[in-house]
Amino acid sequence: MAKAPQNAISPSRSEDYPQWYQEVIKAADLAENSPVRGCMVIKPWGYRLWENMQRALDDMFKATGHQNAYFPIFIPMSFLEKEAEHVEGFAKECAVVTHHRLEPDPDGGLRPAGKLEEPLIVRPTSETIIGATFAKWVQSHRDLPLLINQWANVVRWEMRTRLFLRTAEFLWQEGHTVHATAEEAIEETERMVAVYADFAENWMAMPVIVGAKTPGERFPGAVETLSIEAMMQDRKALQAGTSHFLGQNFSKAQEIMFQAESGEREFAWTTSWGVSTRLIGALIMTHSDDDGFVLPPRLAPAQVVILPIYRDDEQRAAVLEYVESLKSELQSQSYADAPVRVEIDDRDMRGGEKKWHHVKRGVPIRLEVGPKDIEKNAVFMGRRDESKSKGIDRAELVSSIGTILADMQQALFNRALKLREDNTTTITNEADFRKFFTSTDEDSIHGGFAYCHFADEESIEPLLKELKVTIRCVPRDNNDTPGTCFATGKPAEKQAIFAKAY
Amino acid sequence: MAKAPQNAISPSRSEDYPQWYQEVIKAADLAENSPVRGCMVIKPWGYRLWENMQRALDDMFKATGHQNAYFPIFIPMSFLEKEAEHVEGFAKECAVVTHHRLEPDPDGGLRPAGKLEEPLIVRPTSETIIGATFAKWVQSHRDLPLLINQWANVVRWEMRTRLFLRTAEFLWQEGHTVHATAEEAIEETERMVAVYADFAENWMAMPVIVGAKTPGERFPGAVETLSIEAMMQDRKALQAGTSHFLGQNFSKAQEIMFQAESGEREFAWTTSWGVSTRLIGALIMTHSDDDGFVLPPRLAPAQVVILPIYRDDEQRAAVLEYVESLKSELQSQSYADAPVRVEIDDRDMRGGEKKWHHVKRGVPIRLEVGPKDIEKNAVFMGRRDESKSKGIDRAELVSSIGTILADMQQALFNRALKLREDNTTTITNEADFRKFFTSTDEDSIHGGFAYCHFADEESIEPLLKELKVTIRCVPRDNNDTPGTCFATGKPAEKQAIFAKAY
Repeated sequence: MAKAPQNAISPSRSEDYPQWYQEVIKAADLAENSPVRGCMVIKPWGYRLWENMQRALDDMFKATGHQNAYFPIFIPMSFLEKEAEHVEGFAKECAVVTHHRLEPDPDGGLRPAGKLEEPLIVRPTSETIIGATFAKWVQSHRDLPLLINQWANVVRWEMRTRLFLRTAEFLWQEGHTVHATAEEAIEETERMVAVYADFAENWMAMPVIVGAKTPGERFPGAVETLSIEAMMQDRKALQAGTSHFLGQNFSKAQEIMFQAESGEREFAWTTSWGVSTRLIGALIMTHSDDDGFVLPPRLAPAQVVILPIYRDDEQRAAVLEYVESLKSELQSQSYADAPVRVEIDDRDMRGGEKKWHHVKRGVPIRLEVGPKDIEKNAVFMGRRDESKSKGIDRAELVSSIGTILADMQQALFNRALKLREDNTTTITNEADFRKFFTSTDEDSIHGGFAYCHFADEESIEPLLKELKVTIRCVPRDNNDTPGTCFATGKPAEKQAIFAKAY
Repeated sequence: MAKAPQNAISPSRSEDYPQWYQEVIKAADLAENSPVRGCMVIKPWGYRLWENMQRALDDMFKATGHQNAYFPIFIPMSFLEKEAEHVEGFAKECAVVTHHRLEPDPDGGLRPAGKLEEPLIVRPTSETIIGATFAKWVQSHRDLPLLINQWANVVRWEMRTRLFLRTAEFLWQEGHTVHATAEEAIEETERMVAVYADFAENWMAMPVIVGAKTPGERFPGAVETLSIEAMMQDRKALQAGTSHFLGQNFSKAQEIMFQAESGEREFAWTTSWGVSTRLIGALIMTHSDDDGFVLPPRLAPAQVVILPIYRDDEQRAAVLEYVESLKSELQSQSYADAPVRVEIDDRDMRGGEKKWHHVKRGVPIRLEVGPKDIEKNAVFMGRRDESKSKGIDRAELVSSIGTILADMQQALFNRALKLREDNTTTITNEADFRKFFTSTDEDSIHGGFAYCHFADEESIEPLLKELKVTIRCVPRDNNDTPGTCFATGKPAEKQAIFAKAY
């Protein structure tokens, strides 16, 4: 399939990456800003993608022993206050409910009435309200571990918002678990960050690095925060999921206690972990190109779209019959343990326009079928990650569709991994560090990932602030060789990854 | 399986129906009250049931051409004000967000800060916020029909709450559609109430009557409201789902306009329809008994639970091997086009306690398997809707499990239908009406369904108020014979169903 004379998305990635991101979302019909400040509308195509992500993650949570439940959207203000660091972290971005009805305003219109005795916070995260319930559920060591997940909406009153990446309301899941020992809770924290890494790499085709956050970057109230970090195409890092070991901080705040086998009453150990609709932003920025969205096949709502081509009613009947049978045959094939998802687009629309509709929305495979193709018992196939379309024999297509999708999934992962590897370096001194993160920026490029030994967070904070660089994580793998801090020259045990970030 | 000397739920239905309802929810581990006034916690067993209901309904919505999307949880106060009846209907029960952060209170603790310019309402329903978005999406008749559904939480600040039936926050789906003509919108309204009736009868095993609400009972802002009404075991009615033809009321309030084929700009016609976690309350009150919850097989999270019985480790190994293979065989069978859902409960717990655990939670089929059963290649089977357990040959059980589940599903429906028929009557004068709805109440019984011709709503309102009776609906079927109003003697075209209601 020939390329259009110019790309579908303007500006291109190299012209203006942030604006390109917004344009891809618009062109792919994924979401839009709502009339409510900072809140988004997730459109049907974006929501179908989210449903696929939910389904896959939910299966992984259930396979690791978790059960879903649902807790109130409101948190009494006094609950937040019980964990000092936690409230400090969230107080500045809370939507606060203060009244429970509306009454006519003497000046016209309505005004809030029925003032609540205690203000309620729209949950920004649910550790405190879920903890209060867990305190009732947990009595004995026999009740542990308690492994619960919730799919929900949460609200954080962000001042600068961006679709999917940072919105006042977003959709997410939050796991909350209770354990009898620190060891078991730490094991759970590790297990769930590994689940996230598995999902990111094997479903989203997005390579990630697993590591621990430094104290300054931890979740408010956590003892340790593990995260998965991915590199976007502009070389910035994106935190795609976090898993927190909360120690006994929240069990002490909420009095989650249990009778141990010894008979003693003890405080429990808790964890929490979450991923959100932010993952859709990560997906867009990992794979999309200057023609729009590129969907990894495993998560694509439609993996194959068939575009029938005809000139008159007679041709139409023959072509539609052919594509219906082709659709059935393709659906009887499987990819990644599920039937191939195929749709026919027979809307009355110009051929070019229709093709670009699906290109921009990122459908992995497009098949064009007209009378001449039928004569040859062949179809014209375009793969979203390749620029050229090609003719392919029908039988060959059907028998190999699973392989083609698997190949595309792998190709997307490999391309993203190569980008990360090409833009990852080890830096041992401040001069190189400054140079790496002070690029000319002419093509929206932001350095990349710098592995640096560092001694302590506080002493390098001014430098990081100046360069707008953050410590992403202390990676888990191959990080046992001591060195000296790139900035202070002090002895340093570990390397961290430094990057600009979303 | 022998019955325990007394029933598991106290009080019984006849002793105190409302309290029995609360005790069933507790005994079945479905939900509990949260520390936040009127908000519930849906526990894992209740949430699994909700997930099954969601999955079935979602498939039905998609099969009728609807797509899911997601809209903001907040509605600007000014949006609500645009539709006069609508705001009148919801103003008294709105959670109002007035601030966007918390700051230290000089008197200690925290206080709301960052006052919003315009208060935001936590959605009680989303016609206004979704309508504002639809106004942008709909431009031409080619954009119609627009068929959208949303799964979401909503908040209505009810003063008297009851788990599942009436809670400040609840989970639901709300369909919102836009059409070019009144006829198409009415057709959609009818289609969706029929989907709800199908779901209620064929999934929930709950017989329902489809009818139209009288003007006084309509959704605020609707031109017509259709509903499904079910009879609970205490003879009260429960409205289980509604489908609204909104005419042009909301399209005029939100300016949803389109260019017709004629070229004219016209206001569109809209509908909305919803069911909620209230359905779980309906399910409980339709089928449960004095031993706890009774689940219709088609919605049961586990349809079969196997309880292995053994005395020592040697027996345990043999029994577990046997029940694992039995589980596999049962799972390879299907019921209602899905594999049979089977679980093994091998927790270390007294046999009687374990059995009652599953009885109270409503699992349709319990299988007890011990060494003696294995010798005979048989199992001991208890069906939740029958009081006696019986031995059954293993091969026979496996080959007939689908039939057994189907039979139980049908039996539950038949029992509920018989209850309704036995407690439905036609009433033609006020004296009989008074008598029907003024029972001694000694066994928590509330009359039943009374079919009465009625002329107009206003003139009988004082009588209904006095007796605490409501007009449930004007039923669709067999309602074309005119008569005279039971209360006023005026000529009346239709009959309505009168009942006490939840």
